[in-house]
Amino acid sequence: MKKILVVGLGLIGASLSMALQGFEDYEVVGAVRSQATYDKAVARRAADRLTFDPAAELPGADVVVLCQDPAGIIGFLREHKDRFKPGALVWDVCGVKTAVAQAAECLPHGVDFIGCHPMAGKEVSGIDNAEGTLFRNTHFIVTPGPRATQEHLDLLHRMADWCKFGDVIETTPERHDEMIAYTSQLMHVIAVSVCDNEELFSCVGFEGGSFRDCTRVAALDPAMWTQLFTLNAPALSRTVARLEERIHQYRVAIENNDRETLRAMLSSASDRKKQINLERARGDDVRPKF
Amino acid sequence: MKKILVVGLGLIGASLSMALQGFEDYEVVGAVRSQATYDKAVARRAADRLTFDPAAELPGADVVVLCQDPAGIIGFLREHKDRFKPGALVWDVCGVKTAVAQAAECLPHGVDFIGCHPMAGKEVSGIDNAEGTLFRNTHFIVTPGPRATQEHLDLLHRMADWCKFGDVIETTPERHDEMIAYTSQLMHVIAVSVCDNEELFSCVGFEGGSFRDCTRVAALDPAMWTQLFTLNAPALSRTVARLEERIHQYRVAIENNDRETLRAMLSSASDRKKQINLERARGDDVRPKF
Repeated sequence: MKKILVVGLGLIGASLSMALQGFEDYEVVGAVRSQATYDKAVARRAADRLTFDPAAELPGADVVVLCQDPAGIIGFLREHKDRFKPGALVWDVCGVKTAVAQAAECLPHGVDFIGCHPMAGKEVSGIDNAEGTLFRNTHFIVTPGPRATQEHLDLLHRMADWCKFGDVIETTPERHDEMIAYTSQLMHVIAVSVCDNEELFSCVGFEGGSFRDCTRVAALDPAMWTQLFTLNAPALSRTVARLEERIHQYRVAIENNDRETLRAMLSSASDRKKQINLERARGDDVRPKF
Repeated sequence: MKKILVVGLGLIGASLSMALQGFEDYEVVGAVRSQATYDKAVARRAADRLTFDPAAELPGADVVVLCQDPAGIIGFLREHKDRFKPGALVWDVCGVKTAVAQAAECLPHGVDFIGCHPMAGKEVSGIDNAEGTLFRNTHFIVTPGPRATQEHLDLLHRMADWCKFGDVIETTPERHDEMIAYTSQLMHVIAVSVCDNEELFSCVGFEGGSFRDCTRVAALDPAMWTQLFTLNAPALSRTVARLEERIHQYRVAIENNDRETLRAMLSSASDRKKQINLERARGDDVRPKF
């Protein structure tokens, strides 16, 4: 029997560990650090087997899935680089890919690291909120380097199918980080910025769906997002600057009562949004080619 | 039999007209402008009766609900001010309340105007998307002026109950506009600003729930939102400026790799969001007192 070792049973790790159970002829072993998580993992049958000692499992693990926060993943790679099984596939799940790919360069030749990013999540964390169905119809982004083997890419695709991901997107770590700065990190900057408003506690009763939707992700894990933001600073900073500029243009048009400009800006943005909604509904292939 | 006249069967008007049917001993009459809307209203049984001539219905209408866009409501009040039935209750549904309350000052004494704002909506418009259930568990904001009668306020509460609103929030037009600038209009400024990005069409495959949630309302009606933004320019401009400032502070911390500041800002915002989530879940009365 082959072995998948899932390191870190937080929200994503525990959900993956649940989702991967039964995959081909693999045993799923979950590595935890705390007794509390161990007990919950047992109660929820989050893995076929559990361990407190991932290092001891590494030499026999055909697939290793690193599910810690970015600093945890980078530290684990460096600390255990010589313990991985030759020919193993190592992948991670965190939200920045260039920094992790650079750290993975320390792995010996023959250990194949492929940075991944399941585009799934919740505004709450931990194994308590994990679900084996978390990945259904979400994107699974993989960022294979030049040394990635076709065999391992095929294996990743089969695991993605088994976990019921909606699709698998292949791109480079750099392109991933640029895109994710816009589609995910910026949304988190917005959500926390909106919550940093003195009216937050007095606005209850005045909030509709748009406010709940926009601020949902503000209940984030500050330590993890500090890592994600700083590890992707150049791309994130560019996309935040672009947003600042655009929001400022709206404010100027509003303050000047410049209805013509305002209407033109709103028409253009709303047309763009409607077009992309349509393309998605039609299932057009507007996906970038690499 | 008494009569409720709903003027304008767009998304909100048609949904209200559907929801209000069967309310006490009122006939619900829907006023439309186009044959297309008339035909759809007949097919969907959107009202007990339909008319192309709201002016002719006004002298017999005990309740008039104005469901046009802000300029349409203001124009209707001015044009028909002498046709309303003495003792009638007139209310509107649009997203700005000070400008509409000022326009309603032209009504003769004895016609009671109360500006309202059902905090419900969709990112799509028109009678095709209307539903009688649209208002379930949403806020119904009412902004009675000093001349509003208790009898009419009670009537509004009973209509809100009948339409299954979650609660009725009473406030002033000015406070409404200040709050809504933050909780609703700002969310729309954000959504369109995010969509004004060259990466919008290439980011498919990289977007998760936060991106879909934040940009959902960008598919807005440009003419109506131009009105809403400019009619509430001072409050909206203040809240946009506050957001710009905060987003800029995040960018500076990210560019300076200032993890300590970043983590402190993220902790504070995320704590605020978690606290308000908790208060809502507990149903605490964090609602402002007026």
